[in-house]
Amino acid sequence: LRGARGSRAAEKRGYRVLLEETDATIEGERAVMSSSEAGMVDGMIIQPSVMSSSEIARHRSDIPIVLLGETPAPLTIDRVMIDNVAAAREVTQHLIDAGRRRIGFVGHESSALSETSRQRILGYQDALLGAGLSADPALLVASDSISALGSVEAVGRALDAGLDVDALVCRDDLAAIGTLRALQERGVRVPDDVAVTGWDDTRLSAVTFPSLTTVSPDIDAILERAFALLDERIHGYDGIGRHELAPYRIVVRESAPEH
Amino acid sequence: LRGARGSRAAEKRGYRVLLEETDATIEGERAVMSSSEAGMVDGMIIQPSVMSSSEIARHRSDIPIVLLGETPAPLTIDRVMIDNVAAAREVTQHLIDAGRRRIGFVGHESSALSETSRQRILGYQDALLGAGLSADPALLVASDSISALGSVEAVGRALDAGLDVDALVCRDDLAAIGTLRALQERGVRVPDDVAVTGWDDTRLSAVTFPSLTTVSPDIDAILERAFALLDERIHGYDGIGRHELAPYRIVVRESAPEH
Repeated sequence: LRGARGSRAAEKRGYRVLLEETDATIEGERAVMSSSEAGMVDGMIIQPSVMSSSEIARHRSDIPIVLLGETPAPLTIDRVMIDNVAAAREVTQHLIDAGRRRIGFVGHESSALSETSRQRILGYQDALLGAGLSADPALLVASDSISALGSVEAVGRALDAGLDVDALVCRDDLAAIGTLRALQERGVRVPDDVAVTGWDDTRLSAVTFPSLTTVSPDIDAILERAFALLDERIHGYDGIGRHELAPYRIVVRESAPEH
Repeated sequence: LRGARGSRAAEKRGYRVLLEETDATIEGERAVMSSSEAGMVDGMIIQPSVMSSSEIARHRSDIPIVLLGETPAPLTIDRVMIDNVAAAREVTQHLIDAGRRRIGFVGHESSALSETSRQRILGYQDALLGAGLSADPALLVASDSISALGSVEAVGRALDAGLDVDALVCRDDLAAIGTLRALQERGVRVPDDVAVTGWDDTRLSAVTFPSLTTVSPDIDAILERAFALLDERIHGYDGIGRHELAPYRIVVRESAPEH
């Protein structure tokens, strides 16, 4: 949920946006949450990737906050996300419907599983079990870092060690881009030999070769709800946290076609 | 020059960074330059992509500004950039040294050529002429938008119309990523049939397949100088604008190997 789109959504409501990037580190997220804007900031929309629920609750009781994404939200704070378990189930089912049977999962943390990865793996497993397929831990390819390069290396190592799959559900588009490269390096054809799916529908997902089938969150709907909730808090609403689900869809492209 | 790295460079100097994204539109850049931070902001580092020199000079005489990148800088304002003409000459020479002879240029604006594109095309042409090759306007592939998708379409159209090249110098990594796809869609092998180079050494350039040979600006050096110049302005230096060049190097990867 990068800046330009968020800025436009904010402008429509008469807000001005100050962006701060955290580089997805705990130090970065703590710095943002702890920092003082000296009255400049009316509220905060944050998509934490590593801060815990209780730590978020401890910071900033002074201004309204809306959380985005899958981090467990404190009961006192508003949160907007897509249903990650359902979306993971759906994108995995898409592969099952296309006749894939040995479906792996790529790109989650090798230790300290994030809530994002946990929910996506849950949905992936749900779909497998629902189709009468076994969820084999040997088909989970963890990554040393949540990055494209991390998944090039992880998938490469797994393939060299004999990973036998006909599809890979990737944690996000970056993992999928790295997975494409690891497969292509070894002459594995996508999607003929192995279908690949991403998550986020980033700008590049239409431009990779093959282009990526991916989970596409409705960013405009997410921003619309986040700003509406923040607006209400800024204008006095002080009730319990509202946890809302936003729409998503599976965008089917070349890396995992219909069949 | 996105946030996290800039934020760390700023923190080292005791500054806090407020990011604003402009989406590379003239409206976005004007909004940032015109906005009032009510005393919150001590200075501004901005990388304009469409605002003109005279327009930049008219705005914000109230706070110190350092410009990054190739926009023509007002004589009164500090600016840090890499030598784009030299870097374009060098990356083109790399292709000539590898035996390429019909070398195109991809991804510049189809109208209203930016200063960035102008300098890179100049260097590209310099290298061709220096090697006794002709600079054929038919080898320039303009793009409707400065984006990966724009160059997929532009290069695709050009290839279908009979573009005959053995190498393509791309304006930036996004154009190079789109160019890879357009070539691959048509079964053109990279680098065997056509070598491709990018510009920026973005994170994905090591992960595309093939990975991208690209011009790699020394971001740390650029930020170091930009903050040093801003520091001096904030602490009272009020002289004529300093225009400084930062280092870069050509990172050679699979899309355009040594030979």
